Amino acid sequence: MTMQEGEAIDKNSVIPIYYQLAKLIREQIRRGEFKPGEALPTEIEIANRYEISRMTVRRSIAELVSEGMVYALQGKGTFVASPKLDNVVFELNNFNREMAQRGLNFKTTLLQAKILRADDELKERFRLGEGTHRILHFRTVTAAEDERLSLENKYIIYTKSKPLLESELNDPTLPGLIASHSDYLPVSAKKVLKAVVATNEEAALLGIAAGSPLFLVETTVFDPDLKPVGWSKSIYRGDRYKITSYDGWYQKE
Amino acid sequence: MTMQEGEAIDKNSVIPIYYQLAKLIREQIRRGEFKPGEALPTEIEIANRYEISRMTVRRSIAELVSEGMVYALQGKGTFVASPKLDNVVFELNNFNREMAQRGLNFKTTLLQAKILRADDELKERFRLGEGTHRILHFRTVTAAEDERLSLENKYIIYTKSKPLLESELNDPTLPGLIASHSDYLPVSAKKVLKAVVATNEEAALLGIAAGSPLFLVETTVFDPDLKPVGWSKSIYRGDRYKITSYDGWYQKE
Repeated sequence: MTMQEGEAIDKNSVIPIYYQLAKLIREQIRRGEFKPGEALPTEIEIANRYEISRMTVRRSIAELVSEGMVYALQGKGTFVASPKLDNVVFELNNFNREMAQRGLNFKTTLLQAKILRADDELKERFRLGEGTHRILHFRTVTAAEDERLSLENKYIIYTKSKPLLESELNDPTLPGLIASHSDYLPVSAKKVLKAVVATNEEAALLGIAAGSPLFLVETTVFDPDLKPVGWSKSIYRGDRYKITSYDGWYQKE
Repeated sequence: MTMQEGEAIDKNSVIPIYYQLAKLIREQIRRGEFKPGEALPTEIEIANRYEISRMTVRRSIAELVSEGMVYALQGKGTFVASPKLDNVVFELNNFNREMAQRGLNFKTTLLQAKILRADDELKERFRLGEGTHRILHFRTVTAAEDERLSLENKYIIYTKSKPLLESELNDPTLPGLIASHSDYLPVSAKKVLKAVVATNEEAALLGIAAGSPLFLVETTVFDPDLKPVGWSKSIYRGDRYKITSYDGWYQKE
């Protein structure tokens, strides 16, 4: 096993050399050039190859050890570890990215935008006291090639008497609505993903059978004092959406 | 606004100073000490406060700008940005972590462990050619307080005639099974999350009604040549599991 030619350390870079070397070895492991169970070249071989100090090499290796990518066996050398493959992270933007990759025509349409008086559920969601509270409600539907795929209901505490602009009515984001129609600053969000089945109303709006599987995403947006200032409930058709995740040291397919 | 006392830069550390400073400011933003829209202290104020060079301060700020946490306005200073709140990352380990937090008694039981001849579906999953191929199949069910919550079916290409040990039969991991019962090296995984409804068989095994909502997780494990060497299909009750995600610059609730 030899280090790849053509990959160099830039000694004039502002990026520390140990960091460059760790990155280089990490990429070689990810590409499968160093395989799990195989030994890395010795400290002195790596130091000579890149014309850097053994101390720097040691620091790079320590970095990779702390990441769990390699492990050292006393007196035997440094070996590439096997990935655990238990790091399951799903990114939700995949929802729309995957659809876009299939070349579908995406379109979001506003079904409803109005000011409501908060009912008991909304008062609880927003931790509001007694009395009258105005809530701005937006309902949008997203379709691809005229097939309805997802439905979103957004609610914010309405405090600014600002007219709803045509330009906002297309695909308003929850933090955007909060910034323009309330006095609150959206700074953090909590999202909960559930598997549910379509109610009669949801089924009718999406043009599917009641009881069909759906992803449900509930989002709560908070201000700097952790007060809930926005809430949304989105459903995605289970027969049209999936979430994909990759783990391990090799490139995605 | 002043920098917090008690937070210091360690000039003797192997960690670059600009990196320490960026981390320090990042944490102050996360704690809400610098709020969105507010100006950071000037370069020279920060440099004096920590007794470091303006160049180092500039580099830390550049780091935070590239992360989108702050932005610079020519001649006016550096301001804390508002988080986008669109980074939706769901971690699946939450499934069991949340259950554990509720103090439930988790238990995984082996329902079945046997060697099958690959049928057409398994041959396609594992990209196997014609002929006889042996597949090791494990089926486990996980329960909490005697309520069945999830069901997992794991399949691996069986190449080592190694007896199935009692100790493996409890809660075998897919990469673990591959390592002990095949000649393949598990190095990467692809996971797909779907929302589905329970079939009659699944409903009977979980003790729920057919048509109930479920999360379905399909995992494919690959060897270094990207050959699929393990596959699993897990279902989780939609009424018992949810996946939670946090976004923004503040601490989790």
